[in-house]
Amino acid sequence: MSDTEFDIIRRYFTRQQPDREDVITGIGDDAALLQMPAGMELVVSMDTLVDGVHFPRGTAAAAIGHKALAVNLSDLAAMGAEPAWATLSLTLPEADANWLAGFSQAFFKLADRFGVQLVGGDTTQGPLSITVQAHGFVPAGKSLRRRGAQVGDHIYVTGTLGGAGLALQLAGEAGGELQQRLDYPQPRIDAGQTLRGIASAAIDISDGLLADLGHLLEHDQLGAALSIDDLPRSAAFAETVKQGGADVRSQYYDLPLSAGDDYELCFTVPEALRGQLASVRQQLSCACTRIGIVEQQAGIRCHMADGKRYAMTARGYRHFGASPHG
Amino acid sequence: MSDTEFDIIRRYFTRQQPDREDVITGIGDDAALLQMPAGMELVVSMDTLVDGVHFPRGTAAAAIGHKALAVNLSDLAAMGAEPAWATLSLTLPEADANWLAGFSQAFFKLADRFGVQLVGGDTTQGPLSITVQAHGFVPAGKSLRRRGAQVGDHIYVTGTLGGAGLALQLAGEAGGELQQRLDYPQPRIDAGQTLRGIASAAIDISDGLLADLGHLLEHDQLGAALSIDDLPRSAAFAETVKQGGADVRSQYYDLPLSAGDDYELCFTVPEALRGQLASVRQQLSCACTRIGIVEQQAGIRCHMADGKRYAMTARGYRHFGASPHG
Repeated sequence: MSDTEFDIIRRYFTRQQPDREDVITGIGDDAALLQMPAGMELVVSMDTLVDGVHFPRGTAAAAIGHKALAVNLSDLAAMGAEPAWATLSLTLPEADANWLAGFSQAFFKLADRFGVQLVGGDTTQGPLSITVQAHGFVPAGKSLRRRGAQVGDHIYVTGTLGGAGLALQLAGEAGGELQQRLDYPQPRIDAGQTLRGIASAAIDISDGLLADLGHLLEHDQLGAALSIDDLPRSAAFAETVKQGGADVRSQYYDLPLSAGDDYELCFTVPEALRGQLASVRQQLSCACTRIGIVEQQAGIRCHMADGKRYAMTARGYRHFGASPHG
Repeated sequence: MSDTEFDIIRRYFTRQQPDREDVITGIGDDAALLQMPAGMELVVSMDTLVDGVHFPRGTAAAAIGHKALAVNLSDLAAMGAEPAWATLSLTLPEADANWLAGFSQAFFKLADRFGVQLVGGDTTQGPLSITVQAHGFVPAGKSLRRRGAQVGDHIYVTGTLGGAGLALQLAGEAGGELQQRLDYPQPRIDAGQTLRGIASAAIDISDGLLADLGHLLEHDQLGAALSIDDLPRSAAFAETVKQGGADVRSQYYDLPLSAGDDYELCFTVPEALRGQLASVRQQLSCACTRIGIVEQQAGIRCHMADGKRYAMTARGYRHFGASPHG
């Protein structure tokens, strides 16, 4: 790529943005210069998406731009943080104006929604790959963590599960709503902040419920019992599975347990705080469903509504990009 | 790559590190949780290195591990910042234990030297590419910036110029010292911090002196006169150029002006503060050479010792990764 092409790329990322007062210098110096508010802790998450690994080749540029930021905001949500700044490293084989327009518009649309300012980054030539780092704040000592669950705590998830996984499995044949779930995951920022002081532990579901709940429980060497008929499934998910062949129908139980890419939150709430959860539930922009309970015995045991044990065939799905930061 | 391979990779990056008190949670949760010291501003820099673009294919893993962090620390140096934390996104085609050992040892050696703790990141499978974000602190209002130079300010550079560019040009045929300059750039962290309150503007030289000094001057629409015989060159550089063929000898003037990858600092000092610079010079771990003066007229004019104007053939070298953050 020539200098001119780099200039073209940069133009797409220097558009007017929400001008945060805590950004002293954004793009344009050797580094960004930022001001932390008093009494807050800094929360940082970094995720990379690689072409053909984290999204199928040919995925719309807008979906990639949205997702690159969304997966990082989802990590901030799982910490109960308020998003503030992002940096973006974009590696591209060529400067394609249509692609850049689609990517940057979706990236900024999501950034604007959460008041996030792009403050820096890098542009390089190479195989398509995107790394985003998101920065947020959380009041000192109030962050949600993976550790902290106790025996008897109730286990919840936000939104619905399995939709993104089903879309991935149907490879473009899924209906619009499921495809939206895969391409435009919604970070549960408001839920994460609302759950501060209520949830005893939290994690976002990027590798699948079993895998991520497993990460949450392993910190305190605990286990769980899940009621798998209670797992929240969208109407589109249930309908599509019902209409599918035998191979698809068998996914009614497995996908919500094992599929990544939903980016919902999974969290635990002590019995004593369930009343508080009930009182804030109305404020949330998404549903919040109780799916099980934390137990002393290690491992995750799944039960059907009739009490029968469900023999899991699926293991927690782990995409290539499984990260130490979920 | 399998889960096991990802576990192997992660093992190389979870070794014992300097345990900074301001790291509440490093690797192992959804995001890192960090504490900013009072009265400081946060400085963040992000740079990506792509195989075959920012380093020749076959470059030693140790050199890549060092450089990925060094180029980011160099950006912090140019802001006068004290480094604190880093995040690392590593995209690898495969989990090669030898490569990982070399890369991680060099990365941590440099991190340890500056008290930097690796607090998070991501590991993905794909074409070799490394993104690092470095975080540092600077006392509020005391950062060095690209803007701020005034007519009559003296222009300085740290260390020596052209060595890394010569090694790149000789493609492995350079002597050990020049090759070291290319493979193991030394971020001028102490110089950056010492220059706070003395330098009126600063930038690190990653794209070549002419290009980067140009970035510094363009902020205030200024120009400069450089004395190109005064540009600091190492003995190894001068010796190698002298012994080279005609094509190499012509680089005696051009390379220090145009070659990137030296990662020295270029900065300006008002006449009134030259005394202060003289008094702190002894503390610096590198030389500090006056090379010219800031002028009103835009553009950079180069002169030989005999006063003759040097007709620049070289334009500021711009590697693929030329970034909005230098």
